Amino acid sequence: MQLKQIGIIRSPHKQAAGTPVQSALATGIEGTIEIFPQFAPGLKDLEGFERILLVYWFDRATELQLTVIPYLDTEPRGLFATRAPCRPNPIGLSCVRLLEIRDRILRVADLDVLDNTPLLDIKPYIPSFDAFAAKRIGWCENAKGNPAVADGRFETGRNPSRTSR
Amino acid sequence: MQLKQIGIIRSPHKQAAGTPVQSALATGIEGTIEIFPQFAPGLKDLEGFERILLVYWFDRATELQLTVIPYLDTEPRGLFATRAPCRPNPIGLSCVRLLEIRDRILRVADLDVLDNTPLLDIKPYIPSFDAFAAKRIGWCENAKGNPAVADGRFETGRNPSRTSR
Repeated sequence: MQLKQIGIIRSPHKQAAGTPVQSALATGIEGTIEIFPQFAPGLKDLEGFERILLVYWFDRATELQLTVIPYLDTEPRGLFATRAPCRPNPIGLSCVRLLEIRDRILRVADLDVLDNTPLLDIKPYIPSFDAFAAKRIGWCENAKGNPAVADGRFETGRNPSRTSR
Repeated sequence: MQLKQIGIIRSPHKQAAGTPVQSALATGIEGTIEIFPQFAPGLKDLEGFERILLVYWFDRATELQLTVIPYLDTEPRGLFATRAPCRPNPIGLSCVRLLEIRDRILRVADLDVLDNTPLLDIKPYIPSFDAFAAKRIGWCENAKGNPAVADGRFETGRNPSRTSR
């Protein structure tokens, strides 16, 4: 199972410190995505979608840790119960707003990804496939000082460290 | 960028024909996920989440096609505007309901994945991070005979071919 880079994500986030931990916390932050020429024909029809899912490689993730202290918490949690990038397969997911496609450059907003991150895939975001109600959100229910985890809206959300997301 | 398998997905879907194209179309269909022993400590705290995102490898995907005719449509569309598995990186995403974890076996529902699919990652599904309203859904808005694409509810959804999802 070998991956190939299909493009590159360019963002204002030059380093982990200060990068939002989720696109839901990055409202309005814009960036661009360059799709390599050989994959550009796959972009046809994409512009009709308001949001797209970016699948990318956490190329600056720290080494695998099976328990982590999440940014939103103070206790060690199982890695798979968190969005931390130090995963067995450091694959990141972000749902961003698609503003425009020109040739093979996408302009997007709500971008929480580090500059120069390798892109692996783009999928259209379709609420009937991707948006689910889920009342039980485990340890996040008790994430102190982060009421928005439960509310669905964040007022602040700058990440002092991208160790966890 | 080399992937490692962290577990295996076991489902009643033995072949592409008849497999639902999305977990939203697989309501109630149960399966199990075995996490390999070395990754089991990462499962701690996961059981508190109602839904989880499975990241997996479409190991039976056909070769890359940059335009496809989606199951929900009759016209060729750009690959990245579809969920077809014949991608440059055949990575699949499913949001399933987590019913129970026993040791390193997860029992899940709403499973749209083929039996014996290699698992790459599990992430907790957190609506405030993952559920977005998106009114514009491109070609899906016109997907004839599939009113539920817009409504968010499917009455039927068996896939005659898993070429597209």
